[in-house]
Amino acid sequence: MKFLLKKKVISIVAVSTLIIGILLGADFQPSSVDAHPAINSGKAKNVIFLIPDGFSASYATNYRWYKGEESAMDSMLVGMHRTYSANSEVTDSAAAGTAMATGEKTNNGMISTSPEGEKLQTILEAAEKTGKSSGLVATSTITHATPAVFASHVASRADEADIAPQLLENDVDVILGGGKKYFPDSLLNEAKKSGYNIISDKNDLQKAKKSKKLIGLFAEDALAPELDRDKTDQPSLAEMTDTALNILNKDKDGFFLMIEGSQIDWAGHAHDAAWAMKDTEAFEEAVERAVDFAKKDKKTLVVIAGDHDTGGMSVGGYGEYAANLEILRNVTATGDYMASQLNDNRSNVKEIVKKFTDLDLSAEEVEKIKTATNPNGAINDVVSERALVGWTSSAHTGVDIPLYAYGPGSELFSGLHENTDIPKLIAKAMKIQFNKTK
Amino acid sequence: MKFLLKKKVISIVAVSTLIIGILLGADFQPSSVDAHPAINSGKAKNVIFLIPDGFSASYATNYRWYKGEESAMDSMLVGMHRTYSANSEVTDSAAAGTAMATGEKTNNGMISTSPEGEKLQTILEAAEKTGKSSGLVATSTITHATPAVFASHVASRADEADIAPQLLENDVDVILGGGKKYFPDSLLNEAKKSGYNIISDKNDLQKAKKSKKLIGLFAEDALAPELDRDKTDQPSLAEMTDTALNILNKDKDGFFLMIEGSQIDWAGHAHDAAWAMKDTEAFEEAVERAVDFAKKDKKTLVVIAGDHDTGGMSVGGYGEYAANLEILRNVTATGDYMASQLNDNRSNVKEIVKKFTDLDLSAEEVEKIKTATNPNGAINDVVSERALVGWTSSAHTGVDIPLYAYGPGSELFSGLHENTDIPKLIAKAMKIQFNKTK
Repeated sequence: MKFLLKKKVISIVAVSTLIIGILLGADFQPSSVDAHPAINSGKAKNVIFLIPDGFSASYATNYRWYKGEESAMDSMLVGMHRTYSANSEVTDSAAAGTAMATGEKTNNGMISTSPEGEKLQTILEAAEKTGKSSGLVATSTITHATPAVFASHVASRADEADIAPQLLENDVDVILGGGKKYFPDSLLNEAKKSGYNIISDKNDLQKAKKSKKLIGLFAEDALAPELDRDKTDQPSLAEMTDTALNILNKDKDGFFLMIEGSQIDWAGHAHDAAWAMKDTEAFEEAVERAVDFAKKDKKTLVVIAGDHDTGGMSVGGYGEYAANLEILRNVTATGDYMASQLNDNRSNVKEIVKKFTDLDLSAEEVEKIKTATNPNGAINDVVSERALVGWTSSAHTGVDIPLYAYGPGSELFSGLHENTDIPKLIAKAMKIQFNKTK
Repeated sequence: MKFLLKKKVISIVAVSTLIIGILLGADFQPSSVDAHPAINSGKAKNVIFLIPDGFSASYATNYRWYKGEESAMDSMLVGMHRTYSANSEVTDSAAAGTAMATGEKTNNGMISTSPEGEKLQTILEAAEKTGKSSGLVATSTITHATPAVFASHVASRADEADIAPQLLENDVDVILGGGKKYFPDSLLNEAKKSGYNIISDKNDLQKAKKSKKLIGLFAEDALAPELDRDKTDQPSLAEMTDTALNILNKDKDGFFLMIEGSQIDWAGHAHDAAWAMKDTEAFEEAVERAVDFAKKDKKTLVVIAGDHDTGGMSVGGYGEYAANLEILRNVTATGDYMASQLNDNRSNVKEIVKKFTDLDLSAEEVEKIKTATNPNGAINDVVSERALVGWTSSAHTGVDIPLYAYGPGSELFSGLHENTDIPKLIAKAMKIQFNKTK
């Protein structure tokens, strides 16, 4: 009887959606219509929450020019969100992540703890309470602020050694990224006993899909920037995403998976425009894997939201009516890597920059890099000015950030939101209880 | 019979909307829900298109801090749009306006003319063809690029003298703003003969509401920035909006009205953060009048979209995790005006800046302004740094821009759009023919 009633309701909805379509003139399809394929299909069994750290509308626009066509995110734009923290108009990643994981604003630097020190329940913890599996994937150390906020509670983001055991106590089923140094052998041995498969070799990632629970740490510290990554040594964000989805999809109760493109932010701090674009490309590949999964699965909500802008990036700048993102396609190393290749008196600036960017520097540009206190910063400044990518800060900025969603519940994310709305809307879409405190 | 059928359709839609609400969990209201009060109420009889020139997401965020609460625009956010022109990643206001008026991209500098010189039909012209009235309101000269694109066609935006007669040939019913110098007596006499009431005194604006057609030009050139405006001499954008709505609302066929907050852009070019915020406040007042009208009328679509970012503004900057917009509330003059009050050797910098900003400048800041080539620019730089408002350019930038809508048809604007989609969606909402060429 219940089933019949449900069927009837859905058919009324279907008919009336058609009527609404006719009233509005059904021959026009707004470009975001793809974002809501499942507007009436009920709850989200699974959620994949992708966070491109530092990614604002300027990164989205610049990336489109870099790519030469619309990004995988573009058709999923549903709104924007406000990023300020409890103690500043400009958030750091810890407070931004806490808001996006717990639904509560906290002070910069704090990890899923209120300004007063209370532990705040995270959306990952709330999902686990209903029997769902969970996963965290990042290109930073997996104990870094953004992944940390989903499954640990500490007063300071710097306490990465305290965060590592909490990820395991919280029973996060899939942990993939960098940060081996925060997981001592004693901790990993305990994890092994409680059922985790533990890998550190990229070549083990494919067959690790058969694991029930997995810890994969592919570097002592953060993974390499995508521009500098040795593909034989470290996996891409998309490859880690694939393995995570394979493992988590075995849980018939569903899962919550957070995937962070961690280093878009680091590129922004460094004003390294090519690093920012290349790491956005790597992030987009992970988005494509997530959306492919959701399209087939039909019960998976995908949410994508940067946590803040980094660097005050602009599209164009320097008084010019133009932007030359296409020149960044030829860049094959970060500014940091290029600087590391300079000889002691920096006599090879012109050759090194030519080799890794294909740019022919002017004498003035060479001189600027030669005489700079930080040659890496100077290389990034020169390349940014050639690409016409502007910057206002070495820190974050506070601009509202684009919000993207796909799948069941995606329509909840329309409009302008607080960052704290995001986990509440995810809980709503999953139809699970979500409490303020742990 | 037709009426009965319509009533029935609407009631099915209402019931099923309720059912959709229940399925999604009706106790949650996404913050933008207000934007679509009339999702099922059929076509937009009237359209009010408000353009805050130069207004990007950073202006929206900074303005919220300046105001101390959400803006009138915030709850209407429905999407974003792409601003590039036919010949550049970074548009000027002529090409951006042409896209938003005609649905076609053109080269920077061109006014509703294709790159090849073809005259493009504007949404205002298309609305007039169906018997609707039309109006243009701006704080620039009314022949400036953004108002011009809606009712004139010239190869260069500089040809303001050629634009003025075209506005009249195009039979724009209400013309309010600056730019008297482009309307010679011969032209105004002709206008009078064809039924226009012509005013230039702010005090005549109230009783001019009884006009059938109105030209109100309140300055030879542009109107004053809101910070410097003599309220006894020039009307506000909201006051002009009121009169325009009163006149246009008499047309039983409906109307198309474009209202531009012209000088947000000029403030951005000058890096005058206080001017940008104060002119956004004046623009917001016009938005409030428009939305009040639409709320009562129920057949009016309000669309709000900046045409591009100006200056590469950021929220915060200078390496700080903060933004101090509140200090701009004390600023009572533009940088241009303050600079005009400096004596010949600029010995009164400290006093003048204190008088108009309430800031106590350091010796270093005073010196910077004293020795600058352009003291106005230097004042703006000092105030911007105090407010932590960053800038990357004296020109525009190419970042995607927030898109706001309210009323019947507002749901069409959800998602990421091209700027050229905007007039097409307006035509769709009005259910009128819209052709490529005039």
